[in-house]
Amino acid sequence: MSLATIESQDVVDFAAQLLTLLRARAPKVHCITNTVAQPLTANALLAAGAIPSLTTSQEEIEAFAQSADSMLVNLGTLDAERRRAIELALQAIAGQHMRWVLDPVFVERSAVRLAFARTLIAAKPSVIRLNAAEFAALAGAEPDLEQVRGFARATTATVALTGERDVVSDGTRTVRLGNGHPLMSKVTAIGCASSALIAAALGVDDKSLVAAAAALLLFGIAGEIAGETSEGPGSFAVRLLDVLHGLTPEIVRRHARASDVD
Amino acid sequence: MSLATIESQDVVDFAAQLLTLLRARAPKVHCITNTVAQPLTANALLAAGAIPSLTTSQEEIEAFAQSADSMLVNLGTLDAERRRAIELALQAIAGQHMRWVLDPVFVERSAVRLAFARTLIAAKPSVIRLNAAEFAALAGAEPDLEQVRGFARATTATVALTGERDVVSDGTRTVRLGNGHPLMSKVTAIGCASSALIAAALGVDDKSLVAAAAALLLFGIAGEIAGETSEGPGSFAVRLLDVLHGLTPEIVRRHARASDVD
Amino acid sequence: MSLATIESQDVVDFAAQLLTLLRARAPKVHCITNTVAQPLTANALLAAGAIPSLTTSQEEIEAFAQSADSMLVNLGTLDAERRRAIELALQAIAGQHMRWVLDPVFVERSAVRLAFARTLIAAKPSVIRLNAAEFAALAGAEPDLEQVRGFARATTATVALTGERDVVSDGTRTVRLGNGHPLMSKVTAIGCASSALIAAALGVDDKSLVAAAAALLLFGIAGEIAGETSEGPGSFAVRLLDVLHGLTPEIVRRHARASDVD
Repeated sequence: MSLATIESQDVVDFAAQLLTLLRARAPKVHCITNTVAQPLTANALLAAGAIPSLTTSQEEIEAFAQSADSMLVNLGTLDAERRRAIELALQAIAGQHMRWVLDPVFVERSAVRLAFARTLIAAKPSVIRLNAAEFAALAGAEPDLEQVRGFARATTATVALTGERDVVSDGTRTVRLGNGHPLMSKVTAIGCASSALIAAALGVDDKSLVAAAAALLLFGIAGEIAGETSEGPGSFAVRLLDVLHGLTPEIVRRHARASDVD
Repeated sequence: MSLATIESQDVVDFAAQLLTLLRARAPKVHCITNTVAQPLTANALLAAGAIPSLTTSQEEIEAFAQSADSMLVNLGTLDAERRRAIELALQAIAGQHMRWVLDPVFVERSAVRLAFARTLIAAKPSVIRLNAAEFAALAGAEPDLEQVRGFARATTATVALTGERDVVSDGTRTVRLGNGHPLMSKVTAIGCASSALIAAALGVDDKSLVAAAAALLLFGIAGEIAGETSEGPGSFAVRLLDVLHGLTPEIVRRHARASDVD
Repeated sequence: MSLATIESQDVVDFAAQLLTLLRARAPKVHCITNTVAQPLTANALLAAGAIPSLTTSQEEIEAFAQSADSMLVNLGTLDAERRRAIELALQAIAGQHMRWVLDPVFVERSAVRLAFARTLIAAKPSVIRLNAAEFAALAGAEPDLEQVRGFARATTATVALTGERDVVSDGTRTVRLGNGHPLMSKVTAIGCASSALIAAALGVDDKSLVAAAAALLLFGIAGEIAGETSEGPGSFAVRLLDVLHGLTPEIVRRHARASDVD
């Protein structure tokens, strides 16, 4: 059901070749992410062909950030060390043109975290990946298409809103993605891992809209295939890594459901 | 083999409807727990229908605790931040009548942790879930029935002692649970996850004895079914989440082994 | 293809009986390790029969270290607390003749971590388990046989270099191990878990060369068998724990590929 027009066809094309690129280049992705999500995040990156690192040590974060190809900043379990690590890492890559993804986990649950997320958005992430509740807290509005576009324009970031369907917009161009599976919401850190995969894609290509949408498309396809042969959330998480590791351009093209939004 | 008398039949009845309640109400369970246990804990809660959050950030813990429906306080990997988070969270919910579970992991290995556990018990957890070694360290006695009852009376908490069989007592009423599987002791964080499930049950019902016993009964049944079709501890952990996610009232009633203790 | 000569035959013999020893004695292994690796590390130890503990709390680390049978010091996600915990733990066991393993994760990515690893090596770990990039950073040379032997002599540690094939040397005696599977490099914390298994082996036997090589041999055999029946990295990690839990002396002897190096 791929409606082939300019943007969404670009996304499918890039998604089809993305795993080949990741396996060939093995981008180093430094992930400042919550402790809950660390194992699945690292395993999703390894399954896709990237090289994760996850330190939040203040003494080391600069070296890891500067030697990475891209970064993920995830606000889950945002303790003082993690917050300081984020600040140091962003300082360390300032001027390097390194691309990074912001995942503002649970900003609707904490005013402190919401305020910190706003300062990070001012530091210009390439992509903001978030769900409807997080969008509503940050943008002050329900996530309809116009608001997503407006938030992308206001932040100059590519906004990747995930849920039953995903919408990815840079304010001008907008793509809708239709793959996925209900079990994706029953496993912790699935959203976090999808953000990490976007960061990996940005480690091999600097076109934020296409990279973000292609990474989410891959993840959604892997989730959809995994969901069909799982018996519940436990086997789903296992199968997701297996499927992601085994995806081929043909499987991606056969399953992709991406469409442009007028 | 369900010996239907007043308490244990209440437990089976509540266990049979608990997953329906959790799926309908999706209680928010804030878990201050050790980093080792975080992924399984979050996944067990999601599989059962609850919404986990896990931050230990000093700046955020109040907001997360106050917006939760119940809490878990687990003493594993008890670093300074985690300890401070526990203190702040308990202050934040003082007077809110929020129910919380204490899991005094490994108190027998550390005098500092044992002393801290005692101060937490003075703050009146609804339920204390622990194993025999932890009980012996805290209660200063081997965990026979009389001692379990006495500890429950002394602490005014429901005491949930887990092991080959589980005993749950509020000092007056005592229930014995017989489900489970030996592989449950071969996977890390299984006990921690069972404590989290008790917290989830307290998020939808405030009767501590019945809620704690019902949650352990569900977890034991899921473990028993998972163990029968597992090839070892790896597949057991995966299968446990699948089974927990798929439990129905009929399965619960068919497998439940709960009996009153005179 | 086991070339039975003195050292490698000792390794195979000890590997064959190691799981029986671990299950009988249940050594307590205190693991100071990165948060990413904690769940798999704990589960691998439990699957093998050991008892993991993982706190890094400054107030508690002495009690846990002193009551353990062996220790793992892993430098992943080396934050200030973890670093302090390592120092306190090593002070606590000084003079106790407790054996410990150093796993200098990613020292090639951070000068600070590399310097800290050097101070730890001066504190005399029994075994250093590392990959080629970590070896090159620490030893200042490519990991050929002569360099591995030289590094073992210089550090007076048993050096366990892992990769497609493993080489274990105490500077005098050197064993090469041939089991394993490519998927082992596609799952996070596999190397960390192998180091923990070496620590467990040191908890039941104090011959570092044989213990380290036997533990890696077991882990490689489990990985090889798991890899043959896995569909990708997700099922591989699950299967690895199942296989490790089910290994018998016969399986170990049938699969072992260990040879002496002249």
